[in-house]
Formats: sequence, structure tokens, C-alpha cells
Amino acid sequence: MRISDRVQAMQNSPIRKFNPMAEAAEAAGVKIYHLNIGQPDIETPSVFWEAIKGFDQKVLAYAGSWGLPELQDAIVDYFKRFDMNLERNDVLITAGGSEALTLAFLSIINPGDEVIVAEPYYTNYLTFIQAADGVVKPVTTYAEEGYKYAIKERLEAVVTDKTKMISIVNPGNPTGCILSREDMRVIADFAKEHDLWILADEVYREFAYDGREMTSFGQIPDIEDRVIIIDSVSKRFSACGARIGCMVCKNKEFMAEVFKIAMGRLCVPTLDMVGATAMYKLPADFFNDVKAEYEHRRDVSYEALKKIPGVVCEKPGGAFYITCKLPVENTEDLLLFLLNEFRDNNETVMYAPAEGFYATPGLGKNELRIAYILNADDMARGIELLGKGIEAYKAAGNK
Amino acid sequence: MRISDRVQAMQNSPIRKFNPMAEAAEAAGVKIYHLNIGQPDIETPSVFWEAIKGFDQKVLAYAGSWGLPELQDAIVDYFKRFDMNLERNDVLITAGGSEALTLAFLSIINPGDEVIVAEPYYTNYLTFIQAADGVVKPVTTYAEEGYKYAIKERLEAVVTDKTKMISIVNPGNPTGCILSREDMRVIADFAKEHDLWILADEVYREFAYDGREMTSFGQIPDIEDRVIIIDSVSKRFSACGARIGCMVCKNKEFMAEVFKIAMGRLCVPTLDMVGATAMYKLPADFFNDVKAEYEHRRDVSYEALKKIPGVVCEKPGGAFYITCKLPVENTEDLLLFLLNEFRDNNETVMYAPAEGFYATPGLGKNELRIAYILNADDMARGIELLGKGIEAYKAAGNK
Repeated sequence: MRISDRVQAMQNSPIRKFNPMAEAAEAAGVKIYHLNIGQPDIETPSVFWEAIKGFDQKVLAYAGSWGLPELQDAIVDYFKRFDMNLERNDVLITAGGSEALTLAFLSIINPGDEVIVAEPYYTNYLTFIQAADGVVKPVTTYAEEGYKYAIKERLEAVVTDKTKMISIVNPGNPTGCILSREDMRVIADFAKEHDLWILADEVYREFAYDGREMTSFGQIPDIEDRVIIIDSVSKRFSACGARIGCMVCKNKEFMAEVFKIAMGRLCVPTLDMVGATAMYKLPADFFNDVKAEYEHRRDVSYEALKKIPGVVCEKPGGAFYITCKLPVENTEDLLLFLLNEFRDNNETVMYAPAEGFYATPGLGKNELRIAYILNADDMARGIELLGKGIEAYKAAGNK
Repeated sequence: MRISDRVQAMQNSPIRKFNPMAEAAEAAGVKIYHLNIGQPDIETPSVFWEAIKGFDQKVLAYAGSWGLPELQDAIVDYFKRFDMNLERNDVLITAGGSEALTLAFLSIINPGDEVIVAEPYYTNYLTFIQAADGVVKPVTTYAEEGYKYAIKERLEAVVTDKTKMISIVNPGNPTGCILSREDMRVIADFAKEHDLWILADEVYREFAYDGREMTSFGQIPDIEDRVIIIDSVSKRFSACGARIGCMVCKNKEFMAEVFKIAMGRLCVPTLDMVGATAMYKLPADFFNDVKAEYEHRRDVSYEALKKIPGVVCEKPGGAFYITCKLPVENTEDLLLFLLNEFRDNNETVMYAPAEGFYATPGLGKNELRIAYILNADDMARGIELLGKGIEAYKAAGNK
């Protein structure tokens, strides 16, 4: 009775593996500020609940494998805001962005094929790529440079004859790094030159601050046959538990291949698609208040972080994460201290240690990611707790 | 820009690939009796809708990767009916039985490893196994024998040093074949002798007719470390569109490995889990009326089939499918005729051709699967249409 090599090579999610310790602390009455996971506290739009409560069929039947046509059409309409003209079956509805990513990797990667990913990366990319027996080829980025990766020479340095894709999250998770139009052009030209697919995970598309334009790789005509866009209702509409996402691609041959796997898994949940349809139909200005709120939280969080002596980070331009360097040697060890020992007024804080976000051994040990998904006061308090926790950690003799 | 070998090797779902032709006929006003897909017409239990409509959280948040604890616990309680004592984390909640199968294959199969599957099989097994770069090793079964496969010599004939699992659907899809306690013992001993995992897809567990006992491979203590049970709300509770299933296994090491992938995809939909919890808590006798109804439909369907000259099948003992041989050379060709040409009172019928249910080339061309998921009158009419369609097909010069 063997277990597969691929799953043995996988790591436990560095975002979720500390949950049992957090649960134990909470069971003991400790309040934890959860800056570790991208679970927004913004209310899910009322149209979602209304759509689901209005569903009146007696049999909850299978949907088609493409997803509900009305949801596909709502997504086609949504992308018109970005001057993209999609057809219905350019959009495959998936079980969250996660399934769209899994389907993309399974449909492109042969065992041993390589995917270029900027590190630190959203850690589950490693799991998805390993599930397809692929290999992550990291482009290392640096806190001091704001984790910028759209640099031709650095991309060229990691491409090989096994490279099949470059995988982008823009705006970025975990760094909050956001691409300019010029950056996107660098990546587009690189992909064309080496005949690569571009996997563009744009689930944070609207989370672009300081007046930055919202963009999509789908807006660049000369790469539209090689761009696979990942979208999701989770973050934009604060509906993470709906698990509705999609894959968008104008390459019909590719979509026909992906659809073979999609037929195998039958369909995604009907009710959640009904709710998602209502959310994709929300007007563009629905997001203005949400964006202003997140921008404020980012500013508060960034200022609070900068007050902690020895923290290194640039102000991120998008998404709702900040990755930074701390003045400690090992942020996993610090997190264990925070969860198991440190208390301030019976409160502590949780973040995601960044070592698991790097493929290169040894990197990221002194970095962490926080998600600014709590209100500004809670963010300030959470980061204050981090600062106090670091002080206590060092006072206890740790480095 | 390459597409992976694994997805190119996959077939289009033989159950779903004829849907566009059916949709065209329906758009032209033709009534089609859909005997092609396992979508029951039984109403989803009211407790499902009530639970969802009673959900009153403002933020639809991520659930934990194991699933909602209350759903895990409801499933633990459900399995007590079969004298099985599970712990909460012996149960991983999945996006339908489909995801549970995908996770199981990814967690066991290395590229080139073999899985023993009785053919004809539920066709999506091939897709799931190919997604893990595994190989289906078929045990061929025969209409004349009621598609029986628990025969030691035939299992021994296909086992090699690359065999890692035997994959069972009991009661069976597409054949309706159901294992006796003795049959299960044959499979258990075979798996022990060759050190194989047993993947036991038991989503039709309650659909056991003629007074047959409902069983589970989880009831055999000496194989409990190697049995992986797949369960789902889709069929039992007529809630296919909820996409809630689970993997049940008492092997902690295995579940810890599977959980790495489960963490990567984060979680399954919260609302559907809330509804599923209510359904798993329904009393055991909830299913009595449903079972009586399906048993009646089976009898009506079987009698109607036997009236068509040249049909070969045994009366199936479980699930809600009948697979049989027709007196035509090619049931895909016949289906195209039924969808595109044949009409009787502006009605026609659709089934699943069985060739795609076989791994052995050339087999199954003259077989089909029907699902008796419509009421008895509609089943009788659908099968009458099949008989008339065969007559018209032959009269038009087809063999």
C-alpha cells in the first residue's frame, strides 16, 4: 500500500497548518487577531442571499459542466468593463479559483515540465503544480525592491526547454506587488519569445490602490491565444465560502481539452452559481467603497508595520496583503511563541510565515505575510501585538 | 504552447458529449426522455432548503479544509447504522464524490501505476485515473453473467507489480451489479494478498433491491486500513447539484497525505455543507419510500427492455442503472439517429452508449446504459421509444 510520490512531496499548507494551535488558544479564551488568511470581514452582498433564497426548484439538479449559462454570460458582461469581448464558452465556471488553477496545470504540464513563478508565491500554487507532477522554477524577488519580478533578465535566467508556462498573480498574493502596463508588456513579450502560456490569476483585479488602473492580461491582443485568466467571487465580493471561480481563455483548442476534465467532475454547485450570477451583475461602482476601505486598511497596516524596529517592506500597491522582513531569524518559531506563550491583555496575533512561499531553500525564514482583512482598528492592534510579541520573543532569549 | 499528454489522452464524456444534439432537438420542440444521466426526479428533502434558508451569517466565509465539523459528525453518525465507528477526521468533506475520487487517485497513483476496474465502468473513472497519470486495468464482465466481477481468477489475471488499487462501485454504475457478502470477501482477500488499496465508491449504498442487505466495505475489520470509501449526497438525497461528498478512511497516514491537497483547494461550499448536514441527519427510514419507488421503476424498466427483441440483460440488483446489449452493431450511431432523425409523436429517447465504459478496444459498441430516474410511466414510454427507434433504425437500412 503505497502513497504517491507527488503527495508525499507536498507540504502542509503553511497558511493553515498552525490552525490547531490557534484553536487551542481560542478555546482557552485568548483573542487572536487573524491576519493569517485572506478571509475578508466585508459583508457578502445582499443580492447573493436574495438570489439563493429565491431559488424555487424542487430538485437540486446537476448543472452543465460549463456552469450555468446565465453565470457565464454575467461574467462575459463583467469583462466588457475591461474592453474584453468574450464568448460564453470562453468562460468555464470552476469550484473557486483553486479548481481553475488545478485544471490549467493538469491540462498543460507533463511530468517534469516547469512553471515560472515569482517567489514568494501563493503557496498553494506549489501544491497545484505538484499535483500535475510539474516543477516550480522560481524567480526570486526581494522585500527591498517591493518584490518586483517583471524584469526581463531575471525571467530569462530561469527559462529552460522544459518551461511551459509563466504563472502570475496580479495584483499579487502574498506581496501585494502590482504590475504596470509596461510590466505586463515585458511578461507578454517574454512569453511570446519562449512560446509559453501565461496563467494570469487576477482575482484581486479591483484591489488596485493609489489611483492605479485596473487591468487584465486579457486586454493585450497579441497574446490572447496564450493567456489563461483566473477569476473568482471570493475576494471581490467577499464570498470565499461560495467556492465559485472561473477560467477565461480565448484559445478554443485549449478550452476543449480542459473541458474533458470538467465533464469528468460533472459540475459545480448550482445554488452558489445562482448567487454568483447576481454578484457579477453588480454595477462597477459597487466596489468603490470596498476599495476605499481596503486602501485605508493598507495605509494603517503599513504605518503600523513601519513603527516596528527592523521591519523591511515597501508599500504594496494592490490585493490585501503585505509581505515583509522581520528582525527575527525564524518567523515560524516566532508564530509558535505568539500562539502558545505570548499574551497581551489576553490577546495575540497570527500571520502566515513566508518560508513556505519560497521554492529556494533557506529563503523567507525571516519573512511573513499579513492580510489586512480586518477593520483598521483591529489591524493596528494586531500589528501592535506583533511588535510587542517580537519584543517579548527577544527578551526571552530568541533571535 | 503545448497541451499535456494526459488531457489529450482523455475522451469526451460519453454521457455528456451528445448533449448539444439533444439541446438542438429540444429547441425544435421535440420531447426527449433523458435516460442518459443519473439525475433523479425525486424532490430534494425540504430539510436541505430549510437549513440553507436559515443560514444567517453576514459573511460567507471559507470553511475549514476538512469541511464543517457538524457535517463530519453527521456522517460519522450516519455510518453507525452500518456498525462503523469513525472519528471526525476519518471523514474528509469533498466537492461531490468526484473530488473524493480525484484526491484518492492523486494520493496513491504514480505515473504508470495501475488500477483494477471492472469494465464496463463509470466512465469518469478513466478521466480521474488519467488525471493522475495512472492506467486502468480492466476486468471484463459480461451482460450474460449480470456483469459479475468478484471472481478471483479473473482478478488474478490482471494484477501486476504496478497494481496499486482495486476500484469498486457497489452497487454498480453502470451495471447495477451488487456485491454479496461473499463477493466482498473475495475482493478483500484479493486486496490483502496483493497489498492493494480498495477504493469503494458506495454512493448508491441504499439502492439495494429484492430485500438485499445494505453493506459497506467499512464493515470488514481486517481491511480497514486499506479501504477508502466514497460517499455523496447526490443520489441518496437527490441533491446532485449540491456537489457534496466525502472520503472516509481509517488510515490516518493516508488521510494526512490527502489532506495536503485538500488544504491547497481550501474548502468546499459552506451553504451546501449546511444543507448536507441536515440531510445526513434524516432518519434511516427516510429512504424506504425512495427505495420502493426505484425498485418499481427498475421492474418496469426491465420488463420493458425484455420486450425489445434481441436485448440481453440480467435484472440488476442495485443502483438505478441497467446496462444491456442491443440488437444493433453500434449504439452511438443509433443514438445519433434517435436524436437527429427518429420521432414518435414528436418524442424520442436518450441513453448513454457503453463503448466509452470499456477500456478494452472494440467492446461495448452494442451496449448502452439507461438510468431509471424518471417515473415508471415515463420509463416505460422511454423504453418503448427505444424499441420503436431500433425498428425504424433497422428499417432505414442500419445494422
